[in-house]
Amino acid sequence: MSQRVRISLDAMGGDHGPSTVVPGAGLARERHPETTFLMFGDEAVLTPLVAAEPRLKGAVEIRHTTVAVAMDEKPSQAVRAGRGKSSMWKAIQAVRDGEADAAVSAGNTGALMAMSKICLKTMSHIERPAIACLWPTVRGESVVLDVGATIGTDANHLVDMAVMGAAMARIVFDLDRPTVGLLNVGTEEMKGNEAVKEAARMLREADLPGLAYHGFVEGTDLGRGTVDVVVTEGFTGNIALKTAEGTAKQIAAYLKGAMGRTLMAKIGYLFARGAFRALREKMNPSRANGGVFLGLEGIVIKSHGAADAEGFASAIDIAHDMARHDLMRTIRERLDATPAQASA
Amino acid sequence: MSQRVRISLDAMGGDHGPSTVVPGAGLARERHPETTFLMFGDEAVLTPLVAAEPRLKGAVEIRHTTVAVAMDEKPSQAVRAGRGKSSMWKAIQAVRDGEADAAVSAGNTGALMAMSKICLKTMSHIERPAIACLWPTVRGESVVLDVGATIGTDANHLVDMAVMGAAMARIVFDLDRPTVGLLNVGTEEMKGNEAVKEAARMLREADLPGLAYHGFVEGTDLGRGTVDVVVTEGFTGNIALKTAEGTAKQIAAYLKGAMGRTLMAKIGYLFARGAFRALREKMNPSRANGGVFLGLEGIVIKSHGAADAEGFASAIDIAHDMARHDLMRTIRERLDATPAQASA
Repeated sequence: MSQRVRISLDAMGGDHGPSTVVPGAGLARERHPETTFLMFGDEAVLTPLVAAEPRLKGAVEIRHTTVAVAMDEKPSQAVRAGRGKSSMWKAIQAVRDGEADAAVSAGNTGALMAMSKICLKTMSHIERPAIACLWPTVRGESVVLDVGATIGTDANHLVDMAVMGAAMARIVFDLDRPTVGLLNVGTEEMKGNEAVKEAARMLREADLPGLAYHGFVEGTDLGRGTVDVVVTEGFTGNIALKTAEGTAKQIAAYLKGAMGRTLMAKIGYLFARGAFRALREKMNPSRANGGVFLGLEGIVIKSHGAADAEGFASAIDIAHDMARHDLMRTIRERLDATPAQASA
Repeated sequence: MSQRVRISLDAMGGDHGPSTVVPGAGLARERHPETTFLMFGDEAVLTPLVAAEPRLKGAVEIRHTTVAVAMDEKPSQAVRAGRGKSSMWKAIQAVRDGEADAAVSAGNTGALMAMSKICLKTMSHIERPAIACLWPTVRGESVVLDVGATIGTDANHLVDMAVMGAAMARIVFDLDRPTVGLLNVGTEEMKGNEAVKEAARMLREADLPGLAYHGFVEGTDLGRGTVDVVVTEGFTGNIALKTAEGTAKQIAAYLKGAMGRTLMAKIGYLFARGAFRALREKMNPSRANGGVFLGLEGIVIKSHGAADAEGFASAIDIAHDMARHDLMRTIRERLDATPAQASA
């Protein structure tokens, strides 16, 4: 409880900027009173918002910045215009300089990843970072990566992701040896592309201390929670994540339609209101908001651009947990225990 | 109504074999009385089942076979053991020999595709076939391909799939120029791998008469029904399809849990029973069952191995529609109208 956790925030990021970031920080601090914040952004906007948030009293230092990265800016352009001076860059730099234990931004994902790579650098032996998310399942949650950091993969990258994802799962789920599956089009050994087949062979043979390799899993296993960690290439992972989000919205629309169609259904809805509220809460994507950048020399969390204050608070919660339980050290230990032949 | 549609059935395929195939054929024939069936399988099993199904009276010819492809057989092994004699091969061969207008099997997908390629051959200019499915959306349905015929792709293959998927959409949705989107990790031009970027350029420049190219779509657009046809590579398409199935099951489990938790919710459920039934019907995967093999010199439909009689009947319905409206001719016309530079 007494261990302070310092989080730097890109207060100008996301569709709503400071009006979401500041109350989000307030909500998160209510749950973790030992947190303090470094907020980067427009001082004139931030000062009254922070003053109006009693839960943030004495916990915020505002640092004025004049450049904000736009949501639709090309990463290369964002780096050119924002390097060294944008609220996004400054939030990441605070982690590099040891002023913060983790950075959170709801800004442009491509720009955030590009700046994180330049400012923090990738960990030694890791060629490419990944973005991991918490995926809600019928059993609870799983870590799923990569949901969109890089396009294309090879076996070494998949093995690295298995190790890093397991390190994150160790912290989030408090498991010593999380189960790891490789996402594929079938569970038989002969299925899939060369990268997953080779990664499967490497993980089986390496028998790493930090993870229990389960085998191939399919798309249906994601919601089922078959394994603690699901590893896949970024193109497929991003499409799987957005397909699940879209399906959840689609079913919510069906349900809404069905419940309003007849008088009987409407009466039923009134009786079951509480149950529907619980269901909505379960299906609320902001509960699992927060993509964790893995493979960098520092902790950076991406909040969904459209997230509300509750969603942004969830991203801060994840940053808090990762910093508090020293994600960086856990990953380094796991990578050190990985034999060279199983990790390039 | 008077145009006869002849469908060959692999009566031994699927998890349940003849006990699902025969009543499934009965259900389908009720809807399309002009259909006749060639059933390949164990005569001793099929004869009493067909006799017990009044809706099939005078519409079935049974052809005895002694070899059945197992659900877990490797495709190469299935071809070796079943070529020329298995119920699966014979059903496909009936299409090749002009005895049937389309074949339906609930058997092993890999074996069915391998046998179809050998027996029917791919269409000229098409290097690799694809599997298309009907994806339920909030607006109705979309054609999505490839959901697992081949792993890996290039721009030419994506363009071919756009043309073939549009031909299928023309028949299913009765649209002259269906909209087509390429599945990607974002909608901006710079996003994605080389294959989708190049295919996008080709489709934009070719401006084909048979389809209206919409641009990139994301995973969330699948359930939203943003376009009539969604084109993607087989690995990603298969994972997206199974992820959506898994998410639907997961939400059904949440809903069931929520409705049974309190007395109020249980009472609400009683009132809203009809609405829940309608919802279950909408979420029932057997309604959209039936993967269409595209790019072969003949129509082959894959039913889900675990489908019940209603699901198998849906696959027959699709076979019926594809045969009745001459899918083969529509695809050939569309491919002929595709300039050489846009299709290898």
